[in-house]
Amino acid sequence: MKCFLKYSKFCDFPIENLPYGVFTSPGKPIPRIGVAIADYILDLNEVSHLFNGPELKNYQHVFKEQTLNRLMGLTPKAWKEARETIQSILSAANPILKNDETLCSKAFTSQSEATMHLPAHIGDYTDFYSSIHHATNVGIMFRSKENALMPNWKHLPVAYHGRASSIVISGTPIRRPNGQTLVADGTDPVFGPSKLMDFELEMAFFVGGANKLGEPIKIEKAEDHIFGFVLMNDWSARDIQKWEYVPLGPFLAKNLGTTISPWVVTTFALEPFKTDNFPQDPQPLPYLRHSDKCNYDINLQVDITPKDGNVSTTICRSNFKYLYWTPKQQLAHHTITGCKMNPGDLLGSGTISGETSDSFGSMLELAWKGTKPLTLLDGSQRKFLQDGDTITMKAVCEGDEYNIGFGTCVGTLLPSIKL
Amino acid sequence: MKCFLKYSKFCDFPIENLPYGVFTSPGKPIPRIGVAIADYILDLNEVSHLFNGPELKNYQHVFKEQTLNRLMGLTPKAWKEARETIQSILSAANPILKNDETLCSKAFTSQSEATMHLPAHIGDYTDFYSSIHHATNVGIMFRSKENALMPNWKHLPVAYHGRASSIVISGTPIRRPNGQTLVADGTDPVFGPSKLMDFELEMAFFVGGANKLGEPIKIEKAEDHIFGFVLMNDWSARDIQKWEYVPLGPFLAKNLGTTISPWVVTTFALEPFKTDNFPQDPQPLPYLRHSDKCNYDINLQVDITPKDGNVSTTICRSNFKYLYWTPKQQLAHHTITGCKMNPGDLLGSGTISGETSDSFGSMLELAWKGTKPLTLLDGSQRKFLQDGDTITMKAVCEGDEYNIGFGTCVGTLLPSIKL
Repeated sequence: MKCFLKYSKFCDFPIENLPYGVFTSPGKPIPRIGVAIADYILDLNEVSHLFNGPELKNYQHVFKEQTLNRLMGLTPKAWKEARETIQSILSAANPILKNDETLCSKAFTSQSEATMHLPAHIGDYTDFYSSIHHATNVGIMFRSKENALMPNWKHLPVAYHGRASSIVISGTPIRRPNGQTLVADGTDPVFGPSKLMDFELEMAFFVGGANKLGEPIKIEKAEDHIFGFVLMNDWSARDIQKWEYVPLGPFLAKNLGTTISPWVVTTFALEPFKTDNFPQDPQPLPYLRHSDKCNYDINLQVDITPKDGNVSTTICRSNFKYLYWTPKQQLAHHTITGCKMNPGDLLGSGTISGETSDSFGSMLELAWKGTKPLTLLDGSQRKFLQDGDTITMKAVCEGDEYNIGFGTCVGTLLPSIKL
Repeated sequence: MKCFLKYSKFCDFPIENLPYGVFTSPGKPIPRIGVAIADYILDLNEVSHLFNGPELKNYQHVFKEQTLNRLMGLTPKAWKEARETIQSILSAANPILKNDETLCSKAFTSQSEATMHLPAHIGDYTDFYSSIHHATNVGIMFRSKENALMPNWKHLPVAYHGRASSIVISGTPIRRPNGQTLVADGTDPVFGPSKLMDFELEMAFFVGGANKLGEPIKIEKAEDHIFGFVLMNDWSARDIQKWEYVPLGPFLAKNLGTTISPWVVTTFALEPFKTDNFPQDPQPLPYLRHSDKCNYDINLQVDITPKDGNVSTTICRSNFKYLYWTPKQQLAHHTITGCKMNPGDLLGSGTISGETSDSFGSMLELAWKGTKPLTLLDGSQRKFLQDGDTITMKAVCEGDEYNIGFGTCVGTLLPSIKL
């Protein structure tokens, strides 16, 4: 398939990708829906009249919204038709947009000029804990190698409800939080800035469609409710987490800010990069079983750039495929008790760590609880994050003919505020 | 203060109460904001032009919304003016509504004819664990008397993020969920309907106003962000909870449905029923300290009505004042790391148990983990809830001159669906 716009083979956003996002641009301050193509954004608001297929001709208004929620609320058939329509109007063989200079000038915005916003109103946000390497690492550090995984871990995808209001778009600075921590067991807690700030390399998917409260989404239907994926940095205050999280789970340590990348890469774009599911032993209960592939080969990378430094250091290379539980299993489990899902709900994967120490998805693991500090390219050392550190996450599916990229998920850690 | 409508001294909704809700009525299917007065609802949509004070004259549109979020987004000054305006137009001394038959016929709806809806769009929902008697009871049952309370419990108001999408209005039936449970330690989990369904007697408050991500709401300002209170039944599947909740906290056991009462009772109405805060020892950290009263004397009651039975049994009498942590402390703690609050966010108290066994706020405690079954008035016994059981919660502040009532929070447990 050939696009009439030019880009290199290594471009994140070829015509095979077409991720959705929400953007504003100079002089056009109202958020609107766009699709990333090459270095541009195709403004769907300007071309909504071209969605004339049977699934969308009566739903063109979804492309005139300020979030993706209504598009996410349609069916996979409609999503497929939207993709085919966009591919068609961007194709070199189709004159409809290519030869219409007036429409082109309205419909294309340079990505470098645009400001990206949250792609959807996120009603509820859940974070899973689905990497076996991450869960094992954390278990070894805080318990022992023998008891690293909890008894439930291989039977169900462990998760907790996160804070939707704390999710921010890539580029938003994150404040080091103040909070309660315990210096030593048996002492009284102290108050002050977190000393153990961390990132967590995650991906997350947006839910499409909805179910009724009380009615599970069965595993056979789960893929129909996965709209697309983004990168996610689940910033974590480890010292606050350690003191607060027993018995009801992480709370303030995680609601200080969670960053997502702006472009939602659809399951259609990811389809060619499906790979074998992670082997599961024991076999899960029937409501969680599926034999078809629902795992993706997505290369992940984390860079750290110290304040005032221009030198970035890649500190982690991981891959989505290391996840033990599949997105379908996460969704089927999440709704098995009848929990209601809405379009735009976000489900995070949990930290994605690989088996080797250079593929661990958090500072906690990379520097092994502070016992093995990382040396960055500028010579400085890190056990946890320092004020001014910028964390940049990247994700890309590398194909023979083209890449499917996610762009970046970026955030800078600001010093705590004085209280 | 005398209202031109008549009601008894024991009415839940005298002119001193004026709780807000959202309702529809026969022939008027669009949700609108109302205030409960006697047996009626005053439709604020119909009288919005009467809000002419300095704080509200430019904000009359908030009374024409389909939820309370925009009203909740205003200031305490505006909320106070709204209350004074409503009291004025309902007063026997003011002819403006009383003598306008046409307006009266449009503005009043009988509560018995109305259908109530969620009062606000709940962006995020948090559930605390703030009753020391409840936390101690649970701790004794699952650990021991010596280690009943976790080391953090008296230092911070423990809480977890709940599922906003699962919150439903009083009267909505609740499905017994299917899920994973463990029959005995060391065995494999089994799948099926929860066998240990429970209610939890809670109250919850709606947040008013907002803060910016990264900027805490200080304890001195916290009361300005409390709009009003409702009753809440946090339905819980104890067997699912026990198997899933370590280490990340309650998840599916709690997102099957959470019921709230429809009328939001404001802090103005509750002001005369303020009572001493629960004594705290040790003194909490400075960011959680306040000496002014932020505790309320609200009588709570739970009734159970078996299926096809007309006989209700009161199984619990408790009181809001038994809570160890105050709403102000909950809000100051929740935002100390910079967590963003939005108008309409809901913060639950956690199960409100008193010291005596007839004041415990859950079946788990009342029947002490199934070891002390309750005998109901119809002769049947309960360790946990049975299909068809209706749980009715009531809350009322009892004054010398008038009561401030919350109405009821009702839900019936339906049998699980076959999967």
